[in-house]
Amino acid sequence: MTAINATAAELGIMAGFPPPPDKRFAPETWDLAPFNRWSFQNIRMVLPTRAVPRGTGPASMLPEAHQRLDDLAFTDIDGRASTVGEMLATTYTDGFILLHRGRVIMERYLNGMNAASLHLSQSVVKSFVGSLVGIMAGRGIIALHQPVAQYVPELAGCGYAGATVSELLDMRSGVRFIEDYLDPESEVGMLDRAAGWRPLRPGDPAGIYDMILRLKQERPHGGHFAYRSIETDTLGWVLERATGISLAELLSRELWQPMGAEFEACLAIDRCGTCQADGGLNAALRDYARFGQLFLDEGSLAGRQIVPADWVAGCRTGDGEAFRPLYAERFAAFPDSCYSRQWWVFDRKTGKHAALGIYGQMIYVDPPAGIVAVKLSSWPDPLNDLRRATTIRAIEAMAKALN
Amino acid sequence: MTAINATAAELGIMAGFPPPPDKRFAPETWDLAPFNRWSFQNIRMVLPTRAVPRGTGPASMLPEAHQRLDDLAFTDIDGRASTVGEMLATTYTDGFILLHRGRVIMERYLNGMNAASLHLSQSVVKSFVGSLVGIMAGRGIIALHQPVAQYVPELAGCGYAGATVSELLDMRSGVRFIEDYLDPESEVGMLDRAAGWRPLRPGDPAGIYDMILRLKQERPHGGHFAYRSIETDTLGWVLERATGISLAELLSRELWQPMGAEFEACLAIDRCGTCQADGGLNAALRDYARFGQLFLDEGSLAGRQIVPADWVAGCRTGDGEAFRPLYAERFAAFPDSCYSRQWWVFDRKTGKHAALGIYGQMIYVDPPAGIVAVKLSSWPDPLNDLRRATTIRAIEAMAKALN
Repeated sequence: MTAINATAAELGIMAGFPPPPDKRFAPETWDLAPFNRWSFQNIRMVLPTRAVPRGTGPASMLPEAHQRLDDLAFTDIDGRASTVGEMLATTYTDGFILLHRGRVIMERYLNGMNAASLHLSQSVVKSFVGSLVGIMAGRGIIALHQPVAQYVPELAGCGYAGATVSELLDMRSGVRFIEDYLDPESEVGMLDRAAGWRPLRPGDPAGIYDMILRLKQERPHGGHFAYRSIETDTLGWVLERATGISLAELLSRELWQPMGAEFEACLAIDRCGTCQADGGLNAALRDYARFGQLFLDEGSLAGRQIVPADWVAGCRTGDGEAFRPLYAERFAAFPDSCYSRQWWVFDRKTGKHAALGIYGQMIYVDPPAGIVAVKLSSWPDPLNDLRRATTIRAIEAMAKALN
Repeated sequence: MTAINATAAELGIMAGFPPPPDKRFAPETWDLAPFNRWSFQNIRMVLPTRAVPRGTGPASMLPEAHQRLDDLAFTDIDGRASTVGEMLATTYTDGFILLHRGRVIMERYLNGMNAASLHLSQSVVKSFVGSLVGIMAGRGIIALHQPVAQYVPELAGCGYAGATVSELLDMRSGVRFIEDYLDPESEVGMLDRAAGWRPLRPGDPAGIYDMILRLKQERPHGGHFAYRSIETDTLGWVLERATGISLAELLSRELWQPMGAEFEACLAIDRCGTCQADGGLNAALRDYARFGQLFLDEGSLAGRQIVPADWVAGCRTGDGEAFRPLYAERFAAFPDSCYSRQWWVFDRKTGKHAALGIYGQMIYVDPPAGIVAVKLSSWPDPLNDLRRATTIRAIEAMAKALN
């Protein structure tokens, strides 16, 4: 059995008045191990943020039907016997919740997290941004087949010239953007600096939107899928220009308030006040679950259609051909997978789909099984297919036991 | 009549996606005019912050008994005839509230502020920090006559060696600290950088507490009063070490929750996570008023003693001799004034006292008149005795009209 992961408190991170120098995060280290054990629950102490208010209405109900599933066994991807409890203890879990047919079966907080803690979800927010596009498309405020430059005219002068909203939703524009999280020379490294997650270097763009305008096209739009965070930032820009309000306010108005979120959330912002649309959301565990449940329930809550049902349907399927060229190998365990409207589709037949974020963030929706699961973590590495697969295996075992 | 002050929206500050470069704040300009018209209501978008939770109980009642006092006339300090409405329109007001015997007589929001906006109050927070010391003294956790180094041993190695808690409360230590807000070479300029309000320069201390340890003694402790922000930061350090919890948590537990605050507040923090005890509080207008009312009511609320009554009494009087050497001239209009326990006492006989912050922040308490007033502003200059006096004249006119 893998060793149980040490908590931020056990590691002494940011403990004491002041914390000892080697236990303080720095602008270059805050999201790396071991500091992310602390920082992912304390983003407003690291970065400037903007509130996503929940309004003044009551929180939507999450009825409870707890079951003890810690000892439930499953076979890990490497053939090893494991249990749900072991998965939670050894995959740097901060929070985990499992809903079956809308009822809370399991809700667990580790590493100092509690129900009110706001946890960074990295790229999970992309699925929220996609939903906002879907809502605006449903109202005719944004048209999916239109070029993004229709909404943000400056985009006509960069690599996004001619790319449509739809192509960005599926990450199929032809814009060059290398997403190598550990390479500061890659475009995502520059995005980290432009977004305020790292100190600026001379010559860097002042903010996220300034960076977008520097990007070049390297192949035709509409080709294969390639995961690039900047496509979501560009969708955020389209949303802000099309609606005239900030992404934080839009998220509050169109999702946080209607879905009956229990806690105010917040978005990290860059030095120009621009919301970090590709990975800056911090929210409570149960509120991530509410969003997952909304997608399990075809976009409606208590009879009110919050996200159009046909939009949700399109998030459970998509173009398998476009997905394979770059991702067939990494998704070998999911042979009928794709990426659609800012969601990862694990299986186009059953519609299992997920919002995923680096360092172990996930909202998982399994429609036939009636399952929504949220895992918030602080892995030591941004990508770890084994740890992700272990998590999914455990969720699948729970889904099977409950059905 | 002076021109009505332009709002942040009229000036276009931080407006647009993204805001034009000349309308964006920079790390060197965010708290200066005209950017402070926007930033004082949006500190969490500028600086890292830490929440001061209000808990889950009901907000304490602020019964309303509104009166139309805008046309109430008063004679300004320069002999000019003015009105309350003119005072509000021409002193860069963001929020103003006046309570008489606990009832809200006037509550006004300008420049885009609303009841839920959190406004930076600069040095007003010093009076909150002083109150926390008073609460802890009442419980025997901190002894006022003890040296501060008793609680923070490292202080024995700097200018604070031998200074008592009481001397710091009245800002009468002998530590050298020049408070010239517009001189980056002064100690308060270095504090701005150490606190994260300005970029660090080579050789600067990493945080507020590191800076304190560099300070030297220049005269005996216990001499005359000299206003130095760092004394409050040192008290914050004493509080954190004596209680083992952060200032944000302490403020929540001992004041925000007991006084029935309506909104969560937040504190700006330095790069080490240290709360800015000398000027980092952001709160809603009505919650500042609740704190003022608590001091009008001798520290009790609905029968519960939150701040010891003898502590509050000591905040209404103090050592006039110690005040005169440096402040007699600036306070010529208030011949019996002093500074006591982190409050400015305008008149020792009547006990009129105030929490004051640069750029126009004030909580004003007039015990005989039963008046509490809060003014939140975004002046273009940090200190302006004329504008401050105009505000007090207007409040005095309202107090007279109500009694």
